[in-house]
Amino acid sequence: MTQSPKDLTHLLSAEAKSRKNSPLKECFVYFGQPGLTFLGGGLPLADYFPYNKISAEIPTPGFEGGIGAPITEANKTEIEVYRLKENNGPNQIELARSLQYGYTEGHKEIVDFLKEHTKMIHKPVYDEWDLICTVGNTEAWDSTLRTFTSRGDTIFVEEYTFSSALETVNALGVHTFPVPIDEHGLIPEKFATILETWEGPIPRLLYTIPTGQNPTGSSASLERRKAIYELACKYDFLIVEDEPYYFLQMEKYTTDLEARKARHVHSHEEFIKALVPSYISIDAEGRVLRLDSFSKVIAPGSRFGWIVGQKKLLERFLRLHEVSIQCPSGFSQSLLNGLLQSWGQTGYLDWLIGLRAEYTHKRDVAIDSIHKYFPQEVVTYDPPVAGMFFTVSIDTTKHPKFATDHNSDPAKVEEAIFQQAIKQGCLMIPGSYFKVTPPPDHKLTVVDAGSANQIFFRGTYAAVPLDALQVGLENFGKALRVEFGLN
Amino acid sequence: MTQSPKDLTHLLSAEAKSRKNSPLKECFVYFGQPGLTFLGGGLPLADYFPYNKISAEIPTPGFEGGIGAPITEANKTEIEVYRLKENNGPNQIELARSLQYGYTEGHKEIVDFLKEHTKMIHKPVYDEWDLICTVGNTEAWDSTLRTFTSRGDTIFVEEYTFSSALETVNALGVHTFPVPIDEHGLIPEKFATILETWEGPIPRLLYTIPTGQNPTGSSASLERRKAIYELACKYDFLIVEDEPYYFLQMEKYTTDLEARKARHVHSHEEFIKALVPSYISIDAEGRVLRLDSFSKVIAPGSRFGWIVGQKKLLERFLRLHEVSIQCPSGFSQSLLNGLLQSWGQTGYLDWLIGLRAEYTHKRDVAIDSIHKYFPQEVVTYDPPVAGMFFTVSIDTTKHPKFATDHNSDPAKVEEAIFQQAIKQGCLMIPGSYFKVTPPPDHKLTVVDAGSANQIFFRGTYAAVPLDALQVGLENFGKALRVEFGLN
Repeated sequence: MTQSPKDLTHLLSAEAKSRKNSPLKECFVYFGQPGLTFLGGGLPLADYFPYNKISAEIPTPGFEGGIGAPITEANKTEIEVYRLKENNGPNQIELARSLQYGYTEGHKEIVDFLKEHTKMIHKPVYDEWDLICTVGNTEAWDSTLRTFTSRGDTIFVEEYTFSSALETVNALGVHTFPVPIDEHGLIPEKFATILETWEGPIPRLLYTIPTGQNPTGSSASLERRKAIYELACKYDFLIVEDEPYYFLQMEKYTTDLEARKARHVHSHEEFIKALVPSYISIDAEGRVLRLDSFSKVIAPGSRFGWIVGQKKLLERFLRLHEVSIQCPSGFSQSLLNGLLQSWGQTGYLDWLIGLRAEYTHKRDVAIDSIHKYFPQEVVTYDPPVAGMFFTVSIDTTKHPKFATDHNSDPAKVEEAIFQQAIKQGCLMIPGSYFKVTPPPDHKLTVVDAGSANQIFFRGTYAAVPLDALQVGLENFGKALRVEFGLN
Repeated sequence: MTQSPKDLTHLLSAEAKSRKNSPLKECFVYFGQPGLTFLGGGLPLADYFPYNKISAEIPTPGFEGGIGAPITEANKTEIEVYRLKENNGPNQIELARSLQYGYTEGHKEIVDFLKEHTKMIHKPVYDEWDLICTVGNTEAWDSTLRTFTSRGDTIFVEEYTFSSALETVNALGVHTFPVPIDEHGLIPEKFATILETWEGPIPRLLYTIPTGQNPTGSSASLERRKAIYELACKYDFLIVEDEPYYFLQMEKYTTDLEARKARHVHSHEEFIKALVPSYISIDAEGRVLRLDSFSKVIAPGSRFGWIVGQKKLLERFLRLHEVSIQCPSGFSQSLLNGLLQSWGQTGYLDWLIGLRAEYTHKRDVAIDSIHKYFPQEVVTYDPPVAGMFFTVSIDTTKHPKFATDHNSDPAKVEEAIFQQAIKQGCLMIPGSYFKVTPPPDHKLTVVDAGSANQIFFRGTYAAVPLDALQVGLENFGKALRVEFGLN
């Protein structure tokens, strides 16, 4: 591996290009020089940090009772991080450092751990890749937009996508153009048609949630990813893969209860092999930015994520972060790093394998319930293989009042079902909430993937215990029966 | 107090005005409704957070040995935060909440504590003020700019200011116009002249560091603040007070060693009374945004700050934060709140009083050293009464090579002194690094406060122990003697 990524700095925004290094920061080359008293920076003394030590109780790998098992004396590990380096075990981020003004890219110990993890899982193709820390993918996405787009630009997104990500885009005055998806993610042939007939400059980036897509629950196959990547190379745009759900990949759904028992992964190698390869793992040119996060695998409130991509582009994020977020919380860095160093790479894989088992089970219960309680005459669904979400598609023309009360308007049927379901005791999100509208003046016909009279609802099996999940889905099933006048 | 702030929403930027509430978020009104299963949000179960408990060793008030004293069994308090509410003491932010997707404004317990603190210290004038959490003032400043300015706009700043804050502004394509300052902060008369003769729309905001200004170390008196505030009302702009150093207000410098011993504050009331009133405390119209932070009083790495201002304007920050930083780290919130609840309001005041004593002492040592080691023939300085910085002004015309080698260019003398000081073993930052340049096409003559041949260097007494501080300043004094050909 001596391959270099392409120089893609022409894709940077005016804002990103204009960010300068300050002469003040350049003074820091003298910091720590022997014989020099550095009176340059307004840093408080670590003696004034009122934390001498922080510690945490965490579960011990390999998590035999499952990752949600209560932490007891038998499976408990205590981690401790002291203010001073000399009181700590190896590879800790002492509080004197984590609670001081910090390295914008994140402290070396946790960055090194995540780089090692990234090598193991994604095996980046080119050499000069880098990894910088963020305060989560929401912020990383906002920073990405500021780094590559300007007001008035257009970007490509999946035709249904995470509404919060869309709000980030819209408020920046950037337009979104929808690319058709199906249950296997973005459809390369339809995307190719859009690109071939595009008028004006091609958008500089595609935003995609390739694995366990929000809201559709779809996951892109390797073949699809390769085809989309080829389009990115041909038309010179970046792929931003937002991958919070990557490790919530599950076993395939089956109704065969015996087969369910047999299908768990048995080793770290088997686990890694079972993961669908990421965009970054096929990225020879350095045009993929991978947004990764602990939110779905450790805890959302850690507000800690990271970006993987080519060094030259990530350097522009650092200049932005220096004058915005600065760096993730030092408490987060010390305690997350403490956990990771205690678990090691293999312990962390044990945890991820445990997550896979949990989500597989929750997904199974959800799909079993849909199968049991939903009127199969009007719904269709594909059991997801990753993420937190499932969707149920509904043919609105089968609604008895479709042509009458609802004026043949699927949106009205959607609203009626939404309200009926709340009445019956279950809330799922109407698919239209995630629909991407193209820029008002676009000259291109939007290629529509689905039938216009199909609607869908997004549900999750992540947020509630299994019994509540079953009750909720039974209630949603009732609502559908009431609306569609079934039994 | 039933006064309402003015409606100032006309000052919002296009970006801020365009931020919408999402229908998805509106679904959350149903969250927790009895009898309803909420399958709307992609939240992981708290059972999957691998932290059962976090804890910390903190010092016990009233910090008799000083705030930098080692934490031993005798002065130690242990704080603990469990995953589940029922295992915690009162007013803790349990991990099940702090590590979950969170309240963008910050968790109620810490917000309430800070509101109470704000009432005690700043006594806001109008009723509908609010307080929201941030990840520190750097981010808060970036968010403020996004909320009130657009590319091409101009804002007012002090003629020398924090270079990182300027970088934030410049990269957004916003121009800065310098307002003259002296050792008492912004000069109202000179600012009035600028405003009277301003052509075109008046800038929407003034950015100021009123207390312990960076880089000059100056602090604005109450009279000055009132006069500046009147200008803001008259010309309809916002005042953004960036106040990380507010509690690093010190006793007045004196060379009388006996007087030094007598001058410490003795009670909480005396302490609060000794603080110069903030802009927010005189803000009847709701046109002040106060940026506050734990960085200088607890620890920079906590990445936790807050904004105080009128509710209607802060609501726009929440919409921005929802799609950028989301909220401060949950580890930070639980551990900072744990410390504050343990200390209580009075314990926190004890801590701040301790800080005042420490910084007073460090400032004294710095000024004593300057007095002792610097050639008084070429330097002038005003002992600061707040903050981390002092400045030393130098009359460059007294440099023997001013008119010859240095071509009567004060910048060349500055560079020569900077290099000579490094050679002698001390680094202080050249004042020109903080100089604000007006927009290239501005039509107004910049009112210059100082003499053109005066330069200054910024030093800090915060970052190094006292012995190193003395050695460093002795070395800087040597450098000046060498440069100016003195003894």
